[in-house]
Amino acid sequence: MLEKRQPIPVSEAVHRVMDYAFQAKKEFVPLSQAYGRFIAEDIVADHDVPAFDRSPYDGYAIRSIDSQEASSAQPAIFQVVGEIGAGFVYEDEVGYGQAVRIMTGAPIPKGCDAVVMLELTQTFVEHQQTFMSIKRAFTAGTNISYKGEDVQQHTVLIERGQYINPGVMALLATFGYAQVPVFRKLVVGVIATGSELLEPEESLQPGKIRNSNAYMIMAQIERTGAEVRYFGKFSDDLDLCIRIVEKALQEVDILLTTGGVSVGDYDYLPAIYQAIDAKVLFNKVAMRPGSVTTVAARNDQLLFGLSGNPSACYVGFELFVRPIIRTAFGNQQPHVRREQAILGADFTKPNPFTRFVRARAYYENGQLVAVPSGFDKSSAVSSLASANAFIVLPGGSRGYEKDMQVAVLLLEDLRGSEWPWNTIEKSYR
Amino acid sequence: MLEKRQPIPVSEAVHRVMDYAFQAKKEFVPLSQAYGRFIAEDIVADHDVPAFDRSPYDGYAIRSIDSQEASSAQPAIFQVVGEIGAGFVYEDEVGYGQAVRIMTGAPIPKGCDAVVMLELTQTFVEHQQTFMSIKRAFTAGTNISYKGEDVQQHTVLIERGQYINPGVMALLATFGYAQVPVFRKLVVGVIATGSELLEPEESLQPGKIRNSNAYMIMAQIERTGAEVRYFGKFSDDLDLCIRIVEKALQEVDILLTTGGVSVGDYDYLPAIYQAIDAKVLFNKVAMRPGSVTTVAARNDQLLFGLSGNPSACYVGFELFVRPIIRTAFGNQQPHVRREQAILGADFTKPNPFTRFVRARAYYENGQLVAVPSGFDKSSAVSSLASANAFIVLPGGSRGYEKDMQVAVLLLEDLRGSEWPWNTIEKSYR
Repeated sequence: MLEKRQPIPVSEAVHRVMDYAFQAKKEFVPLSQAYGRFIAEDIVADHDVPAFDRSPYDGYAIRSIDSQEASSAQPAIFQVVGEIGAGFVYEDEVGYGQAVRIMTGAPIPKGCDAVVMLELTQTFVEHQQTFMSIKRAFTAGTNISYKGEDVQQHTVLIERGQYINPGVMALLATFGYAQVPVFRKLVVGVIATGSELLEPEESLQPGKIRNSNAYMIMAQIERTGAEVRYFGKFSDDLDLCIRIVEKALQEVDILLTTGGVSVGDYDYLPAIYQAIDAKVLFNKVAMRPGSVTTVAARNDQLLFGLSGNPSACYVGFELFVRPIIRTAFGNQQPHVRREQAILGADFTKPNPFTRFVRARAYYENGQLVAVPSGFDKSSAVSSLASANAFIVLPGGSRGYEKDMQVAVLLLEDLRGSEWPWNTIEKSYR
Repeated sequence: MLEKRQPIPVSEAVHRVMDYAFQAKKEFVPLSQAYGRFIAEDIVADHDVPAFDRSPYDGYAIRSIDSQEASSAQPAIFQVVGEIGAGFVYEDEVGYGQAVRIMTGAPIPKGCDAVVMLELTQTFVEHQQTFMSIKRAFTAGTNISYKGEDVQQHTVLIERGQYINPGVMALLATFGYAQVPVFRKLVVGVIATGSELLEPEESLQPGKIRNSNAYMIMAQIERTGAEVRYFGKFSDDLDLCIRIVEKALQEVDILLTTGGVSVGDYDYLPAIYQAIDAKVLFNKVAMRPGSVTTVAARNDQLLFGLSGNPSACYVGFELFVRPIIRTAFGNQQPHVRREQAILGADFTKPNPFTRFVRARAYYENGQLVAVPSGFDKSSAVSSLASANAFIVLPGGSRGYEKDMQVAVLLLEDLRGSEWPWNTIEKSYR
């Protein structure tokens, strides 16, 4: 008996998945391993930066008042009373007509209020005492990096859920995070289905294809920041498949399968969901590619049944799996980055389903333009390599023409988006 | 004696570094570890994709000619002579009035030239023979994914030096790359200098700061695709420093130091370069921040003396080190991605040096806009965390105003740029 499936809008499908969103546990990693993770606490400055008034240059620290009469004809002469390297503190107070040789980063000695760059000074020695002369006056504050000018104590520098980039690393080091609180990486299981699948090391055989989805999706999981556990390929024995899924669910946070979600007799996923008592959240989405994408939940644990077609599988991951992973990392912009772009090609034929066209987005004089990145069937594999975006063409009775403004989803943008669907589809909630 | 340094234009400095560009060796990694690497060979399709005419849907394969008379009133009736799952081949030729039940991905049986989707068929059984009926005619080619429609044999799919993204992973799997030829990761050594530096786990002390540069730059190295070897902090003993550098040079492809490149007495790098007989390519660049950036070469091996100031260090890495690493990976766009953007703030004060303002680039209706991401001194650490771009303000006698078109360098763009300097600075070569 042929099952009748009712397609639901993309936004509604994402909503149903996001109802199961959860947060990963916190763990600590050494700073040197924190790059690319998501921070699990707000990072607050526990001290000013700089922590003290310091010199941004090599030169001489002086009291500016002592330079007021200086000129080329009559240089001001200072007695050099000491020198101070970065990391050291000059303990004495500097008095009238005195100067301290100071290195980049060293604290300004007491009494001084200006630094003269080395290049602007001349030195000479008399009776074993070093003197320094300058040919012009300097105002108070010249060449001083003031305490707190960069960061003030108590400032929230990085919010929980933020991606740790190189600049964040610098802040973590500055504030003493030798161990960094990050969200534990989700473990995402992957199982491929399909008796036509060969592994990459196997030779081609009539009627068979190599399993490209599993490797593609492993990279998508990594790109999103989670960890992969690959369970290989389903066998043709349904009972064995059920046992594999049961076992996998105990080892992973979420489980992805590719293929096996069509209505065909050989597609095991519906039977497996039933056997393990998983609730199917949807099994048909009004989108192309990926309309057969199925998501089920068993005891709050999500099972994503992605299409066996490469392009459909790819799109399904980015729309439905990515926001679950990024939400687990506390990120406030868990969805694929959404922007406006100029459409670089005609799509004159209307389609009742919302289309996600694999695309190359680029700039023309700073303006974002998106063109299809190649062959556009859901089975296409060639158009994915050069895709850095999806062009979103909402379903309906109209086509789209070159130079129209359209929504695009930018796959390589680190920032992500808050809920991106409101203006793309009519909201259903 | 104070050394007099002559600043050179940024483009000339990058040219001098790029004269030492080299290529990394090739190695093979398992496909599951290839994501994020750079491919070391052109990838050419060794077969068509699909490799055979196949069905994109579950349904029935028929000879379209047999459906020509079908209508609601008079459905065409087919004898179902077999079924064929994905991965299998139907060996017989299909004849007049016959149909084969076919699953998504299965090869089209000989004789058939159309697939009718399951939803459009009805079946019944008579005398233990299954029949299928359809209510309209189908044209030849309906629902057939033709051999080679996605990829034709001999097409160059991925060029040497390309970044391996999830889509490239799918192609590698498709064409049987169980082992993937990639460029060996460069090993980039890092040594921090500065007696003021504390490690992140140490408590703050008067006059000292924590070593933020080393951790920041380790993340920049990783982001660029290379591997880090951190040698810790220089001691205050020059001879020991020289020995550490000598040893490091034997273990790494290129060596970075942070700090120690100013003109001050405590800055060891010039002395170290001299002691190891390294040729200084430049020690002053007409840029802010990072004017003291120094690069030296010893037997074709590059030593990058980056500034001790976080922002200057960060910029120096992206301008000078990144293109060396990416060129080693065979990449044709080794420089930071350059685009045009609208300037989101005034910079009215002219500066003789080219400025690289740490910035946040974002879109307004698809148009790229860049605003400074915070405190703009070369010592700033706070503005790096939210920076995803540099605003480039060429040196000269003019200031820049909000809404002007300026060049920006996009730090998180995976693509990179070919030589980006021609229209930014007057070319010196």
